[in-house]
Amino acid sequence: MPTHATPRLVKTVSELRAAVAAARSEGSKIGLVPTMGALHEGHLSLVRASRRECGFTVVTIYVNPSQFGPSEDYRRYPRTLEDDIRRLAGAADLVFAPADEEVYPSGYSTWVDVGAVAAPLEGQYRPGHFCGVATIVLKLFQMAGADEAYFGQKDYQQVLVIRRMVEDLNVPIAIRVCPTVREPDGLAMSSRNACLSAEARRRALVLWKSLRLAQDMVAGGERRTAVILSEMERTIHCGPVNRIDYVVLVDPQTLLPIDVIDGPALAAVAVVVEQTRLIDNCLLEP
Amino acid sequence: MPTHATPRLVKTVSELRAAVAAARSEGSKIGLVPTMGALHEGHLSLVRASRRECGFTVVTIYVNPSQFGPSEDYRRYPRTLEDDIRRLAGAADLVFAPADEEVYPSGYSTWVDVGAVAAPLEGQYRPGHFCGVATIVLKLFQMAGADEAYFGQKDYQQVLVIRRMVEDLNVPIAIRVCPTVREPDGLAMSSRNACLSAEARRRALVLWKSLRLAQDMVAGGERRTAVILSEMERTIHCGPVNRIDYVVLVDPQTLLPIDVIDGPALAAVAVVVEQTRLIDNCLLEP
Repeated sequence: MPTHATPRLVKTVSELRAAVAAARSEGSKIGLVPTMGALHEGHLSLVRASRRECGFTVVTIYVNPSQFGPSEDYRRYPRTLEDDIRRLAGAADLVFAPADEEVYPSGYSTWVDVGAVAAPLEGQYRPGHFCGVATIVLKLFQMAGADEAYFGQKDYQQVLVIRRMVEDLNVPIAIRVCPTVREPDGLAMSSRNACLSAEARRRALVLWKSLRLAQDMVAGGERRTAVILSEMERTIHCGPVNRIDYVVLVDPQTLLPIDVIDGPALAAVAVVVEQTRLIDNCLLEP
Repeated sequence: MPTHATPRLVKTVSELRAAVAAARSEGSKIGLVPTMGALHEGHLSLVRASRRECGFTVVTIYVNPSQFGPSEDYRRYPRTLEDDIRRLAGAADLVFAPADEEVYPSGYSTWVDVGAVAAPLEGQYRPGHFCGVATIVLKLFQMAGADEAYFGQKDYQQVLVIRRMVEDLNVPIAIRVCPTVREPDGLAMSSRNACLSAEARRRALVLWKSLRLAQDMVAGGERRTAVILSEMERTIHCGPVNRIDYVVLVDPQTLLPIDVIDGPALAAVAVVVEQTRLIDNCLLEP
């Protein structure tokens, strides 16, 4: 296959399966990169990791309605399929971009609930979000029959939810996680960044600033989470931001709050800047 | 493989997958027959259908705790693994009989909800039952990676639930349904029949009698479900039985009640005889 070819675009599960079966019959491993499109360098880092480790790489582009709440930005979410396909030239082999009726046909009624790890943080502020995520990801895994699937650490809780689902349901796929890719000034890449005005873009920097502050305080010996959180919140209020959903230091596996940092911890933040909700996180190693 | 060999018994997912991969590499299709053991001729008819259509046939034997309610017969359910393996000699290639910790290890928390078709009938009288069924069946499908799976029509609603789940979640497996196998006097074969005393066994015949009555009434031109149901109930009360959970005539796809039989209908009954809950059903074609 020519390295710089534009990936083939398919829209049905049967085309997807036929293309995957053909690649598999030629001895390729199959890598899957589920996305909602509006691709940025974060996505492309996943695509490159898949190409490197698996060979044949399928990128799915689907803005999944079931993971958006009724008052969320489903309609406003950026959709840039033609640009996305161009950006994938030479990087992916196949793009699967199904219509809603292909994914959720009339009569659809099955949902996956992942339990405790989906409850706090995003689960608390976006009720039903992870049910939609777990369900669409399981569907994509079943559709593609891939060997490995790639996700970004920026959606940390999503990765925990998907790992839990894959382990619990015995889905025969390996989950790979790649580091968050950041803009030069530290803002985590996100499709939603495209929704930010110049002023909001500047204010959005407080997410990363607050996480860096936490890293610095832990590196400086601070172990009391109350002290660290108070400084993080003060940083974020300086944005200013329109709303803080959460600023937390939690156990990286259970996502439950911790009082004292005596092992690995996750710092995670979710704020709304103008109308755009942004999340970011980093691991703290004392 | 010698035709009359006792099937190999494996207890872990990794052994199961290795055996299935080996069979597949020899060109076999893989058939799966999920059971809770205490095998009878109904199960064996599924195993024979699988052997005929797929070749390599895996029978799973697992009494799934998550599909039993707290007041149900999980502990009392018959467990006869050695006999079961002997009965499968020459019929199945592999028996997968995992321990509970292999299926639901510590921290397990993912469940599948299939929605409307799981709500009435068994869903109403056994809350949570179909969530447990859908989850274990999805897990077994993922563990085995089979091409086809075989179920009996006796568990009619279970088949609808599994078909819905497989279609909604895009699970790459074909669902095959085989007719209910009956004792010479008409009692549907069931592992729970082993729990019946001689007297209860006699009384249990009213399930089939009531279904035959419905068939006869429809064949005789009766179309009013209220009239048919009233006769069915009268028959069942003559058992006598200890409790009637439901006696219904419903749409075979939606399981919603129908008033007049002007197309295919399902007659379904659930009763308790002594302490044993029994179900049966038949399709009515006017």
